[in-house]
Amino acid sequence: MYGAIEAGGTKFVCAVSDDNLEIVGQIRIPTMVDPEQTMSQVETFFSDFKVASIGIGSFGPIGINPDYADYGFIKQTPKTGWENYNFLARIKQFFDGPVFWTTDVNVAAYGEYHLGHAKDKQHMVYLTVGTGIGGTIINNDDFYAGVGHPEIGHIYVKSAHGNTVSGVCPYHKGCLEGMASGPAILKRSGKPAEKLETTDRAWGIEAYYLAQAAVNYTLLYSPEIIIFGGGVANQARLFPLMRKSFEFQMGDYVQYPSLDHYLVHAKLGDDAGIKGALLLAKQVSS
Amino acid sequence: MYGAIEAGGTKFVCAVSDDNLEIVGQIRIPTMVDPEQTMSQVETFFSDFKVASIGIGSFGPIGINPDYADYGFIKQTPKTGWENYNFLARIKQFFDGPVFWTTDVNVAAYGEYHLGHAKDKQHMVYLTVGTGIGGTIINNDDFYAGVGHPEIGHIYVKSAHGNTVSGVCPYHKGCLEGMASGPAILKRSGKPAEKLETTDRAWGIEAYYLAQAAVNYTLLYSPEIIIFGGGVANQARLFPLMRKSFEFQMGDYVQYPSLDHYLVHAKLGDDAGIKGALLLAKQVSS
Repeated sequence: MYGAIEAGGTKFVCAVSDDNLEIVGQIRIPTMVDPEQTMSQVETFFSDFKVASIGIGSFGPIGINPDYADYGFIKQTPKTGWENYNFLARIKQFFDGPVFWTTDVNVAAYGEYHLGHAKDKQHMVYLTVGTGIGGTIINNDDFYAGVGHPEIGHIYVKSAHGNTVSGVCPYHKGCLEGMASGPAILKRSGKPAEKLETTDRAWGIEAYYLAQAAVNYTLLYSPEIIIFGGGVANQARLFPLMRKSFEFQMGDYVQYPSLDHYLVHAKLGDDAGIKGALLLAKQVSS
Repeated sequence: MYGAIEAGGTKFVCAVSDDNLEIVGQIRIPTMVDPEQTMSQVETFFSDFKVASIGIGSFGPIGINPDYADYGFIKQTPKTGWENYNFLARIKQFFDGPVFWTTDVNVAAYGEYHLGHAKDKQHMVYLTVGTGIGGTIINNDDFYAGVGHPEIGHIYVKSAHGNTVSGVCPYHKGCLEGMASGPAILKRSGKPAEKLETTDRAWGIEAYYLAQAAVNYTLLYSPEIIIFGGGVANQARLFPLMRKSFEFQMGDYVQYPSLDHYLVHAKLGDDAGIKGALLLAKQVSS
């Protein structure tokens, strides 16, 4: 059996699967201000199973480079109580088998890479667009990482024509997350994405920013596919607008696949994270 | 002996070295409109030596993925006569040993990675800022590549405060190359970089754009060092301004090394390309 933890800023999902990755047990735990209140429930859940390994995807930023002292830690998160929390050490208190430790976006991306639209591809960018914006690059089966993991949702973007709204990101005035996350749409239009009229101007602006990001990722990572997940990306009407804007902004500079197969919506939905974490658990156990 | 070709848009440099990478023969050839006029001189140069392998860095964009039909080709270049030119096939007409085929920016970056400021590092971004802007990511000794090589000089950027100049790039209105290359400085200030007064406002704008690019690359690639080469980057006065702007724009979001050692000027200068190509020839021969 394999274990998985999808550690989000509002809830933790823990699951255990059989060898075919069929889930045999699952629990949701609120992410408390005191990490120990959450983690003790995680420990209790796993004490009912004998797992060979655990795959963990955590909110972050996290330390993912084993050569650095912050490996296994949640770092400078705005989430109260969790800054500089040694997550991995707490897991090792009750589990001494192999653990795959990575970001929450990475486990969802890994699910899509193996079971979603990128199944037969080697070069993928995955972007989650919701309360925040984050992403993952998988290149020849490996997560791209340098000293740490990328934070591709925080890159600066060129302002949309007629933009009058300053970004919502507290760190950067004018980054992608600040201009195109769910809270940015709310600030711009007064409504959350799912309640916006299809004809609302805010859709065109949203499509422009996400298309610009996709143009940049194409130039930066040269992927075969860019997959969009998260609450905002669940709005299907965004995709035709985004593809049109992408074509215009790229300006024939580099080649890319047919846009209907290049800029696509995530296939696995909310299951991507836990499925990906289980796949990583299976991989690290062998 | 090892061979190297640095194929630029205005000139080719060919060199042959001994096993210690000391250069024993070198030639410069203008890049003619008819590729064959240049390549026949390349062939003649190498006919005087018996080299074990050749490292090639070419202007581009080029096809670098052996799985694709355009491997070995110069692709949609604006350089007259060279679009869709099968460079590698022409080399193989006179040389049947191992060849390392990559971009001109990659060979220069490889030189810096092994012999310059990144000598002891594993994660480097190299950016050349001159007539155009291009870059290379080396991560754990490998060039980052997806389906093709990155084109990190063409990403869209947030406009500088008070910017009144549209970009000079014919493909993208508002990309980094369009806003911060040598021709962009000339358009903005009426003078080339080397003739600009130190007090000229254009320096602040240039520093802003390059710092913004460095912030983005930090978030995208998580390197240990970002090295700037090329004609514009030869202006040392740019670096203090760029470091200051980087600090402001990053806004404490992720950690980075001391800026004097993080945003640095290339060490090897004009030799980086040919040295890097020789190193790659040596590597591919073994």
